[in-house]
Amino acid sequence: MTHHDAILEFAKMLKNLDRWLDKAAAHAGAKSFDVDVLAQARLAPDQYELTRQIQSACDQAKFAAAYLAAKQAPAHPDTEKTIAELRQRIEKCVAFLETIGKKDLLGAEERKVAPPWLGGKWLRGDDYLVEVAIANFFFHVTMAYAILRHNGVDLGKMDYIGALSTREG
Amino acid sequence: MTHHDAILEFAKMLKNLDRWLDKAAAHAGAKSFDVDVLAQARLAPDQYELTRQIQSACDQAKFAAAYLAAKQAPAHPDTEKTIAELRQRIEKCVAFLETIGKKDLLGAEERKVAPPWLGGKWLRGDDYLVEVAIANFFFHVTMAYAILRHNGVDLGKMDYIGALSTREG
Repeated sequence: MTHHDAILEFAKMLKNLDRWLDKAAAHAGAKSFDVDVLAQARLAPDQYELTRQIQSACDQAKFAAAYLAAKQAPAHPDTEKTIAELRQRIEKCVAFLETIGKKDLLGAEERKVAPPWLGGKWLRGDDYLVEVAIANFFFHVTMAYAILRHNGVDLGKMDYIGALSTREG
Repeated sequence: MTHHDAILEFAKMLKNLDRWLDKAAAHAGAKSFDVDVLAQARLAPDQYELTRQIQSACDQAKFAAAYLAAKQAPAHPDTEKTIAELRQRIEKCVAFLETIGKKDLLGAEERKVAPPWLGGKWLRGDDYLVEVAIANFFFHVTMAYAILRHNGVDLGKMDYIGALSTREG
């Protein structure tokens, strides 16, 4: 599985998430509540609310792409208050992911990834991708899905998974 | 990122999950309730309960390993009723994952993966791994974590992530 496959999957899942927010807006419309109420929804008082789950999912994808491609990650300050702003955040993140090509990722498996929170230690690019980025990205995306579903948005497993690269013959 | 890295990560996350169940038992003991009540806990009436989340996480990992290595997956019938039985299920799954070596996975990226639910279509091994197995595995593991946390088990993000392969120098 290439690093590029992983980054394409992050982008695909973020686009799926954007569609869940579209369904959230439809649900809010049908029930006559302000969709932005959902931005503050959470499953437990000491867990992140939807806004921060989405910001975190975006950041996991963005930093993975930046570290693996040895590029500067664009700054995306956590200022979103509304579902519309969160959708813009997703769009900006996907746009950055789509700038990363296969060539940018040559040698990424052995690249030293030293995020500040590791306090001077580092991870091989491959270890960072699977142990940190993938594990955390799917954590936050799944939590966003769970929060929306818990609040009555009509989501099913195929909304989560999205389109598959199936082949025939 | 190699296929073997992904299978090692599945095994690591399942071992983390086993530790969450240990914490669940401690929590049940401290609060004097039967830990097996948690086996039926769920976050929404139309979502899988903890038992089925764990069975599904195990199956995603097991089938990914089997398909990618072109081996027969061992049968693990969904008969678990208790947390102790779920921990045995995890143990059996991890034991199978640990039989898969790097050599078994040579050429896995192009292997045709045709699970019955694709109705005759297939996915390249790499596409199956990232679009199906990884996305679904982390979904079910995260839901198991969310169910336990929602029920008061003292879990934090480091319990989720587990040990990292950090290096120095």
